Amino acid sequence: MYVELIGYMAAILTTAAFVPQAYKIWKTKSADGVSLTMYLIMFTGVSLWGIYGFFIESKPMILANCITASLLIMIIYFKIKHK
Amino acid sequence: MYVELIGYMAAILTTAAFVPQAYKIWKTKSADGVSLTMYLIMFTGVSLWGIYGFFIESKPMILANCITASLLIMIIYFKIKHK
Repeated sequence: MYVELIGYMAAILTTAAFVPQAYKIWKTKSADGVSLTMYLIMFTGVSLWGIYGFFIESKPMILANCITASLLIMIIYFKIKHK
Repeated sequence: MYVELIGYMAAILTTAAFVPQAYKIWKTKSADGVSLTMYLIMFTGVSLWGIYGFFIESKPMILANCITASLLIMIIYFKIKHK
């Protein structure tokens, strides 16, 4: 139980760290400062972590990686649309 | 076995996504483009993921988060030193 709590705290923090970037891109409708390659690699990695979390039955990992992957899709969408 | 492989692939990709940022900061000796708050939140989150990985006995998670935490420490060090 405590272990899951650590997982959820980790999930909140690492997801929260992505929010300012996503918000800035959403607000300015520009993703000039970020690298498309980096975000595509990150998206693939985060998706694989989500699949891994599914296999090891870790709810915090599934949740965190789904939310982060959604934020990354938004960043990638703006990056491709406005390049 | 396949599951651990997915974990290691995820670990390589999400760690790799941090390397260009860390390399750029190392090379230019400047961390102007990055937010200290964001990296401190990220570092705390990544450390908690590492602890979580230790408890659920996931080697890919321990490895990935140790390396990412080290890269983040380097970024934070440069950010504080050169501000």
